[in-house]
Amino acid sequence: MLKICQFGAGRIGKIHADNIARNPRTQLVAVVDVHHEAAEALAKQHGAVVGDGLAALDGADAVVIASSTDTHADLIEAAAKAGKAIFCEKPIDLDSARVEGCLDIVAQAGVPLALGFNRRFDPSFEAVHAGIAEGRIGKVELVAITSRDPGPPPASYIRVSGGLFRDMMIHDFDIARWLLDEEPVEIYATASNLVDPAIGAEGDVDTAVVTLKTAGGSIAQISNSRRAVYGYDQRVEAFGSLGMLRAENRAATTVEYAGADGVVRDKPLHFFLERYAEAYRRELDDFIDAVLEGRAPRAGGEDGKRALLLADAAWESAKTGAPVRLSR
Amino acid sequence: MLKICQFGAGRIGKIHADNIARNPRTQLVAVVDVHHEAAEALAKQHGAVVGDGLAALDGADAVVIASSTDTHADLIEAAAKAGKAIFCEKPIDLDSARVEGCLDIVAQAGVPLALGFNRRFDPSFEAVHAGIAEGRIGKVELVAITSRDPGPPPASYIRVSGGLFRDMMIHDFDIARWLLDEEPVEIYATASNLVDPAIGAEGDVDTAVVTLKTAGGSIAQISNSRRAVYGYDQRVEAFGSLGMLRAENRAATTVEYAGADGVVRDKPLHFFLERYAEAYRRELDDFIDAVLEGRAPRAGGEDGKRALLLADAAWESAKTGAPVRLSR
Amino acid sequence: MLKICQFGAGRIGKIHADNIARNPRTQLVAVVDVHHEAAEALAKQHGAVVGDGLAALDGADAVVIASSTDTHADLIEAAAKAGKAIFCEKPIDLDSARVEGCLDIVAQAGVPLALGFNRRFDPSFEAVHAGIAEGRIGKVELVAITSRDPGPPPASYIRVSGGLFRDMMIHDFDIARWLLDEEPVEIYATASNLVDPAIGAEGDVDTAVVTLKTAGGSIAQISNSRRAVYGYDQRVEAFGSLGMLRAENRAATTVEYAGADGVVRDKPLHFFLERYAEAYRRELDDFIDAVLEGRAPRAGGEDGKRALLLADAAWESAKTGAPVRLSR
Amino acid sequence: MLKICQFGAGRIGKIHADNIARNPRTQLVAVVDVHHEAAEALAKQHGAVVGDGLAALDGADAVVIASSTDTHADLIEAAAKAGKAIFCEKPIDLDSARVEGCLDIVAQAGVPLALGFNRRFDPSFEAVHAGIAEGRIGKVELVAITSRDPGPPPASYIRVSGGLFRDMMIHDFDIARWLLDEEPVEIYATASNLVDPAIGAEGDVDTAVVTLKTAGGSIAQISNSRRAVYGYDQRVEAFGSLGMLRAENRAATTVEYAGADGVVRDKPLHFFLERYAEAYRRELDDFIDAVLEGRAPRAGGEDGKRALLLADAAWESAKTGAPVRLSR
Repeated sequence: MLKICQFGAGRIGKIHADNIARNPRTQLVAVVDVHHEAAEALAKQHGAVVGDGLAALDGADAVVIASSTDTHADLIEAAAKAGKAIFCEKPIDLDSARVEGCLDIVAQAGVPLALGFNRRFDPSFEAVHAGIAEGRIGKVELVAITSRDPGPPPASYIRVSGGLFRDMMIHDFDIARWLLDEEPVEIYATASNLVDPAIGAEGDVDTAVVTLKTAGGSIAQISNSRRAVYGYDQRVEAFGSLGMLRAENRAATTVEYAGADGVVRDKPLHFFLERYAEAYRRELDDFIDAVLEGRAPRAGGEDGKRALLLADAAWESAKTGAPVRLSR
Repeated sequence: MLKICQFGAGRIGKIHADNIARNPRTQLVAVVDVHHEAAEALAKQHGAVVGDGLAALDGADAVVIASSTDTHADLIEAAAKAGKAIFCEKPIDLDSARVEGCLDIVAQAGVPLALGFNRRFDPSFEAVHAGIAEGRIGKVELVAITSRDPGPPPASYIRVSGGLFRDMMIHDFDIARWLLDEEPVEIYATASNLVDPAIGAEGDVDTAVVTLKTAGGSIAQISNSRRAVYGYDQRVEAFGSLGMLRAENRAATTVEYAGADGVVRDKPLHFFLERYAEAYRRELDDFIDAVLEGRAPRAGGEDGKRALLLADAAWESAKTGAPVRLSR
Repeated sequence: MLKICQFGAGRIGKIHADNIARNPRTQLVAVVDVHHEAAEALAKQHGAVVGDGLAALDGADAVVIASSTDTHADLIEAAAKAGKAIFCEKPIDLDSARVEGCLDIVAQAGVPLALGFNRRFDPSFEAVHAGIAEGRIGKVELVAITSRDPGPPPASYIRVSGGLFRDMMIHDFDIARWLLDEEPVEIYATASNLVDPAIGAEGDVDTAVVTLKTAGGSIAQISNSRRAVYGYDQRVEAFGSLGMLRAENRAATTVEYAGADGVVRDKPLHFFLERYAEAYRRELDDFIDAVLEGRAPRAGGEDGKRALLLADAAWESAKTGAPVRLSR
Repeated sequence: MLKICQFGAGRIGKIHADNIARNPRTQLVAVVDVHHEAAEALAKQHGAVVGDGLAALDGADAVVIASSTDTHADLIEAAAKAGKAIFCEKPIDLDSARVEGCLDIVAQAGVPLALGFNRRFDPSFEAVHAGIAEGRIGKVELVAITSRDPGPPPASYIRVSGGLFRDMMIHDFDIARWLLDEEPVEIYATASNLVDPAIGAEGDVDTAVVTLKTAGGSIAQISNSRRAVYGYDQRVEAFGSLGMLRAENRAATTVEYAGADGVVRDKPLHFFLERYAEAYRRELDDFIDAVLEGRAPRAGGEDGKRALLLADAAWESAKTGAPVRLSR
């Protein structure tokens, strides 16, 4: 039985706590949150105690970090030094130097670190990845990722988010790396502020596309928007010498209405909580399995670092208008 | 070059004339129609002459009969006696005894007779049939046919139509026979007048379902309505020991609109002229090939007779409320 | 907090116990099963005790009956007399007279009785039902239900099942009643033994279709097979004066593979545990809500009785070859 | 009756000749081809004469140019000077300066010039364009175009083709311009030689993606490959403030096969002759209508020029690795 201490009792924290509770091999022992009431409610629901900061690590074998982004690196370092297995929501930090330092400490501690790239655990995206691994499409030549949120966040969120590339497209960078057969060596980005002027006022963009290229010549395209009136648009396509695999959006039902104006079916599921409910459960299961089996989690610190470096490079490209070469 | 004389210059006649013109191995030599102007217009368009009744058969190798239903049997008999290859729109006649007599004359004349069961030539339905023939679904156990018109015809048409079973469902009887591996031995029908009271006032029905069963135990279900607000609903499904084949409706475009209220695509093509345009061309090509190659057309007089007998039995079942055993 | 005692710790019992555990307003207090080990394992997992037969009812507010069919009526009657709210897997009993007697006792006791017609809680089927209720298709004229299991059960199961109509199609009778606007007044069934001779040897059938008709002329068609190599085929279609609503199968992923031989997507989910996982959760939530809110559950004893009467009539029709009039 | 002289009796010439024959308002009077036998066969089929070079223009009102690319500009100029209405297959020429000169002559002559951007006449792509024009997706923000050939052409073709950007992606540049609300001002291209080394040996690429951006910040992405084992992949997606419109591939049938390994449907139609059969007919009808009604054709010389300039800029970007600013 893996005893888990969780930092963060907000929206995503509740999901993780539920998934810890559902897994027969784990026990949620403590919940820590600066909002004491939130911690208390969540702890109570799952028979855990409210933890007192880092002291909460003591009785735990592993830690789940779902607190605000600016706490991630500190908590990872503390947990690593305490020898705990770590699951952390992305990103490790918005600053790549800090990420490097943090990963060094994790490496020295020799503890497992899983990063919350939940989309890798979506059954459909995972089937695309598995199909590539089985050779169904031969050599991967082109990847296309479409990722659009149902609506833009408030300016207050944008301000601390690190910007579209680090906050939103970072998931797509991870998926692109995961589906391509080697690391990208070049990136080109272009972006616009079309959705909400308040986002532009924060110096950020809300509409962006990126092109990635590997040394072998494979190419990935990413398309992002902060607003899709039809819901959370999350699609992936991989094309290769032997065919194409693509994952379409998921909807709440399979119902079609045929009427005088056309044939109508459901919009995609509204947002990440709905679309990735299964992925959140499966990523935590993978973390727990990895810890108990002594293997590496499917997405780790290095993946977090590389996705961030791509985001930084994309932002640079979007600002300079020139492609950016990526150092290995 | 097969010289063809055509009877009938109406809606369906125009389609056949176009398809004769398009086939490089045929020539439309004469058009006959009681509406002289229609005959003249169609003849002129395709460089043919206006024929004078049965005399028009003289210069032709083959005849296409697309005139009103009550003329079919007489024209078939006259053409058979004149030794012409015959393509006739369904039905041969609404009276099964008359059909028998007519087919005897055709048999004595030894001329080919193709019947316009156009749906057998729809590429999708044909692919279902071919898949069965290739053994893709193993033994056929269940067949489901959905066939709904976009809107009901006027009462004046209903009056001379022979009723829903002989006029509309006759196509589905033919498809059912074509997809089942043996002839049905029992039929059950039930029907209602739900769409238009004027249809009921003519003693007819507008909503009907039929169940057919073979000696071997395979079962077919048919569903008909004279009105579907979303267009011409034409679907076929065959289920067997190794899988299922189904043909869905066809639409004008592949476009999807994702908006705030759902994802919308085109309705099915409006009616038979649109849905079966390709089938009409291919059925005439098959007739021409059959005549020139000396083989039997894909759908012939016997098929017409058997579909009519099923329609008669269905009508009897719907009226009596009891299943009807079919004599061979 | 509703205290629940559960009878049955088998496959379906585990699902119900999980769903009781997940609902924040319920507590599983006791588990009863003739297989003591199964009861113990399930009780332990959810912090309940192993109950001793009917004595287990004492500490509970409500009972969930998921034991074998032949125990249902006895347990319902005992729970009713003890004043407990009852959720029972279908069927109440295979004998309609016994069902009547059982329902009388429930009525006298004045306790709520929910019957496990899980399909009514499938999000897609529920959306079809809701669409009809909202008037999206106008008056319902035709209903088509396709229901095929991935593979046939063993002969030992068939022997005690009550036969295809009472065991399998009973769900479809419930859905047909639920989607039609009034009760059927006539039923016609025809059936075959095509899948497994062992089923025929038990006097049962494995392939069957049914036609239902209401006094108003609306018609429903049902198609059943005990074996579909492509998985659990569960589709519903409702057609009316203003359009059509249909629910298609659900698959594990949305992935398509485009290769040299065609475009391939996932088969339907394998069987009821997968397809109706969400429905099982939602039906138990509805029962709990109904009890706590003092309202009737969405599917109750009367629904169970009527579906069984349809199954009995279908079996009679299949054996006699004649349609059966249903007394009200 | 518009009398048309056609240059070119090859594969695409046959299609145009058929479509001229089918249109009731046109007559094919002469066919010119350096392969005399091809000209003769086509002329005979449609009751035309074999023309003798430019002299064939004399008896015609309009000219259809479907000969080899290197003859286009000369023929356009000759036809313009002779006052004929002109339909020309793309491209006008592979050299943009020559295109400019040619268009000057057309302008001076004041004759209509239609360019064979057939995809604008595909019913699905046209429905996307129409939906945008009707405001269904609000302001267009992102466009995605996928265009992949079933297999690569031989090196001999590549050598004279002008390269992937001018030969293949030029169609996609035209579609991008057509769907965006203003002209692109910047272009970035990256490309690889992954499909066939023989293409690389000719100095060309076979896999390429492009990003276009307008002054207003709208962005288009294009993806090209010279080989898709699943057939001709032709998809278009337009995303905007109020929704998304997308056109999927078309297949020969609507048939699905559900078997033990999944649910399989048809691949996309094989190549342009199949996919765009309807578009070829409709583009010629539009040209004929435009000439007879005295209005501009839907795609003209300016469209040809602008698509070529984008192709040139893309090639430059792919070679230099830097985005290219487009002069207006």
